[in-house]
Formats: sequence, structure tokens, C-alpha cells
Amino acid sequence: LPATVGGSSEAFLIDRIRSRIPPPPPWLVVGIGDDAAVMERERNRLDVVTTDVVVEGVHFDRRYFPARAIGFKALAVNLSDLAAMGATPRSMTLSLVLPPALGLADFDGLLDGLLSLAAAHRVSIVGGNIARSPGPLVVDVTASGTVRRRHVLTRNAARPGDELWLSGTAGAAAAGLGACSAGLASGAGFDDCVERFLRPEPRVRLGMLVGRTRSARACIDLSDGLGDGIRQMASASSTGAVIEESDLPLSEATSTWFARQGLDPVVSAIAGGEDYELLFAVAPRQLRAFLAATRQSGVPVARIGVVTKGSACVVRRADGREQPLPGGFAHFR
Amino acid sequence: LPATVGGSSEAFLIDRIRSRIPPPPPWLVVGIGDDAAVMERERNRLDVVTTDVVVEGVHFDRRYFPARAIGFKALAVNLSDLAAMGATPRSMTLSLVLPPALGLADFDGLLDGLLSLAAAHRVSIVGGNIARSPGPLVVDVTASGTVRRRHVLTRNAARPGDELWLSGTAGAAAAGLGACSAGLASGAGFDDCVERFLRPEPRVRLGMLVGRTRSARACIDLSDGLGDGIRQMASASSTGAVIEESDLPLSEATSTWFARQGLDPVVSAIAGGEDYELLFAVAPRQLRAFLAATRQSGVPVARIGVVTKGSACVVRRADGREQPLPGGFAHFR
Repeated sequence: LPATVGGSSEAFLIDRIRSRIPPPPPWLVVGIGDDAAVMERERNRLDVVTTDVVVEGVHFDRRYFPARAIGFKALAVNLSDLAAMGATPRSMTLSLVLPPALGLADFDGLLDGLLSLAAAHRVSIVGGNIARSPGPLVVDVTASGTVRRRHVLTRNAARPGDELWLSGTAGAAAAGLGACSAGLASGAGFDDCVERFLRPEPRVRLGMLVGRTRSARACIDLSDGLGDGIRQMASASSTGAVIEESDLPLSEATSTWFARQGLDPVVSAIAGGEDYELLFAVAPRQLRAFLAATRQSGVPVARIGVVTKGSACVVRRADGREQPLPGGFAHFR
Repeated sequence: LPATVGGSSEAFLIDRIRSRIPPPPPWLVVGIGDDAAVMERERNRLDVVTTDVVVEGVHFDRRYFPARAIGFKALAVNLSDLAAMGATPRSMTLSLVLPPALGLADFDGLLDGLLSLAAAHRVSIVGGNIARSPGPLVVDVTASGTVRRRHVLTRNAARPGDELWLSGTAGAAAAGLGACSAGLASGAGFDDCVERFLRPEPRVRLGMLVGRTRSARACIDLSDGLGDGIRQMASASSTGAVIEESDLPLSEATSTWFARQGLDPVVSAIAGGEDYELLFAVAPRQLRAFLAATRQSGVPVARIGVVTKGSACVVRRADGREQPLPGGFAHFR
């Protein structure tokens, strides 16, 4: 076997992927190997499509980011977007831009991570392409799912008085990134944070259950942090929001990490990106159904604040002071 | 306005795209701006999906590749794949990985080229994402279309005795690449070749018409050259092929370019990639319908050879000698 992808042909690499893909589902009329994939549709369902990319040196650093985690995360960030729409994932295309020096073992590892998550959510790889990169490793996934029209969750329908509910915890991925960057990827007490950063679990079942039970008015996934997500939802819904510091679910390791860096754990957790949790706006009358749906999903949720009139998005600290919601000002540079 | 994309925020760049996108079609339930796009399906149609990427330093060199052409080509190569399936294009997602130093004028130019081709084929941009690149500019498009089940064109159904027909000419894009690399991008007699290289016209209408009239047995688009395309079709169909040198449509400029480089024009034209023409296998009894469909498309076609038994793919030179079909051995490195 060649040691690197540069020692192989594109056809060899494609065959290496094809040989590991499970038997095609009945709805896949033409799969990998032709000019394009051909699929049957599901009746009475809408199509949901999203695309997201992970780029070496921007979203991951290969010094601490295992190849398996790169593949896992490239799909996870897309499934998280589908989850935020209440959709059931179905298919994906995979676009790989590979530096020739990438080891074949890393290529295989990347596939391992991606295929394990795809199998867990029954996502079929229906197509893709492989190109050479003169620079970073780039993994671009476009994922599709289906949803009934009345089960679609959007971000723009929150109303003043709705409660804001968050799945999981806030800021763990940002703490995990910090621990990885500092060379503390394992065994230093931050393993859960590192795991949330490397292998975020997309909340697919939670999003589907809440969508199906119509038990939230709005939903968004947190790719760029809780503060950014709240502002995006509030802006799209023409509302404001108040978050209560005392209600924020921060893991102990997350708080410890930020405090140890001399940072305000609450501010850092709200500003920190890549949690890939779901944020919901829930009307008071939906609350019972919402809690039943979340219980069924097995994912813990916490009420963190309320949707307000106006456009201000603030966090109310434990001492009663309100301050602007941190985060979400990321610059392209 | 900022001079470069690095001087802007991601939100600014996304707004800059959104502001230029035509009003959403009625089937787009949720467009750009939420976690994912939501679309209605067309009745009695299959979905056709393809993804292809263009990478700076691999597929284009910004010294001679105008930004408009980058955007145009990023979509064109995908529409060519849809055309080869007989599909009608419908939607696309756009994934941009941008070096911060990219000028905002080039960002706009890239959009100009992409949007002009999208408008010409009524392709709606339903989603996408923008990420920073620490290296090359990468434009990744995933395009979707629709087709009736009985109108699908695949590459694997050619049979011995079928005629091989090619749209347009062979090798022009490779000659154009050569002219561009040599600094002869315009006015040196190779403008048509350069145009085919920079702005390949995807044969969308031709593919649709041939699919609808069921007037070809197999079809493939030529991304990696005529030789590669013939071998791919023959291999998928478990056949061989014989191409006649004397029937190959080479433009005079293409022949002149390769001869001037001391290369065999026929070998170079067959091996040269990026023509994005369509290659069809046509059964003798389909020929009348095929020619009627191609006439309706307005795209010239030429009979270049036949599908044979066995697995050999050869070109018969003007002097009667047969030689293995050149090209298609591209290494990943």
C-alpha cells in the first residue's frame, strides 16, 4: 500500500471509500461511480439541505486533532444543522481536498470517524469528489434530510415570553479547544471538554422529536457559541433575550478551565463556539410537550432565560447586573 | 467598503451574496439564513445530486484565471455532471474557503460569474457557507437537479455496436490551458481554446433532450479528457471502444497549438482534460432520434467511433495503426 495519498491515484482513493460504504438503500437509484447520484424522494416530505466545511489550520490542528475526529466532526457539524430544522438525515456528499503528504492511515482514519457517525444516523454517502490540495486539508460535506412541512423548526419564530432552553452544557468545546492547544488533550481533568470539542454529538434525535411534537417555536444550533446563537435567533425573530447566569449549565471542568486561564467562566462559556448544542424558544403552553420530547431523547436540557421585547440581548449576572451578551463578533481575518 | 474579504465579517460577505440572489422560487420553503434550506420536491421526479470543487493552484491559477471565470467554472463543472445524467438543474449550495487577502472585487467577480451561469440555467442558490483559508481559494459546489426515472442517462449501459458521439470538439480546453500558462491568454489565435478552458459551456440542454427522447444508451461528461471518459464508459459497461482519428473533431487552433509544442495533436487532444463535453453511446436504431435531439439543442455532435466487445480502448490512426487510447492515467500527486 502507498504510505500517502499522494502515492495513490484518485481512483484508488475513491475505491477505498466505496469498498467501505454499506449496501445502498432502496431509494438510491444510482450511487457512487456515475456522473451524479440519483435518488427517489420520500412522499409527503420536504428536502432539507445544508453544507459546512472543516479546514485545517482554521477548524482543526492536526497536531492534536486525530484524523478520526476530523471525519467525525465534518459530518457532525452538518447533522447539527439538520437537527436544528427538525429533519431526519438521509444522505450526504463528501468533498475531500487532500494534501498529497497526508498519510493513507490518516485518510482511512478520517473515513472511520465519518462512517461511524454516518452509520449511527443512517446517512448514506451518495457521491463526492477528491481533489489535491496545495495547502490545508479541507473536508466539505453537504448533507440532506427530510421533514414534514408542519414539523419544520426555524430560528425566526420566537416570541417575547417564550422560554429559552439549551441542550447539554455551554462552553465545553471552547474549554476543550483551550486544553488541546495547551497540550492537555487527555488525562488532565478536561477529557469531557476535549471530547465535546473533538467529537460533538449532533442532537439529531432531540431536534426530530421536538419538531415532530411541535413543542418549540424556534430552534437554532450553536456553531459559533451560545451568545451568537441567541443573537441570531433574536435578530431573526425581531426580539431580545435575557439569559440568567445562575441558570447556565456549565460543567465543572469548563468553569475550572476558564477560571484557571484568568477568564470569567460565564463570559467565556457564552462566547465560546463549537458546542453544537440546540437552543430552543418554547412557548409556555408548549412546555409540557417539550419536556416530554426532550426526556424521550435522553439529552438533558436547561431553561437558561427568556425571549423579550425589543432587541437587547443580555445576560443577568448572579449579582443582578445585566451586561451585553458576549461573543459573536468573530472577524473573518 | 473593505478592500479584502479579510477586512470583512462573515456576515458581511453572506449578506453581499444574499443581496444579489434573485427572489426565491415558490418551491423554496426556507432559503439562506436559517440552519439549512427547506425545499419542496417535484412530483414524479428523481433527485440528481453531484459535487465538484475547484482549487487554486490545482484547477486554476489566479495569474491568468479571472475571478469571474472561477465562479463560472465552479458551477459549470457541476452542471456538466447533471447534464450527463439527463437532469434538469434546480438548486445548488456554495461553499467558499477564502484566503483573507482575496480582494473584495475578486469576491464580487467570482459571484458575477457564478450567478450569471446560475441565472442562465435557472439554478437557485439555496444555501452555503464561508470559511477562511490559510492557503488556496477553494470553491465547492453541490448541485441538484431532477429527472424522470425513464429519462436517466447512465454511463454503464453501452453495448458493442453502439456508435460513440461527441459534442463540440476535443482538446480545446487543454490547448487553452497551455496558451494561458504560456501567457497567451488573448489575441494570439487561441481565444476559442482559452474560452473553452476558462468558461466551459455545460451541455445541459443537450443532455436533457437526449435523456427525454431516450435516444442514447449511455452518457458521460468529459472532465478528465476524452480518453479517460471513453475508458470510464467502456469499463462501466464491460465493453471496449475504437476511436477513429479521422473522425475526431479538433479545432484548427487546437491542432495548431499542440503541433507548435512539438506534440501529437491527436494524442494530446484525446488525453487533455476539462473539455466538459458529453460523450454518448448511441444504438443504431436510436440514431435518428439522437440526431433530432442534438439538432434541437443547437450543439454540434460528431461520430468518433464505436463500442466494441472485449475491453480494449484504442484509437485507429489515419494510417490504420491502432494504439492504446491515451490519457486518463493522472496521478494524484
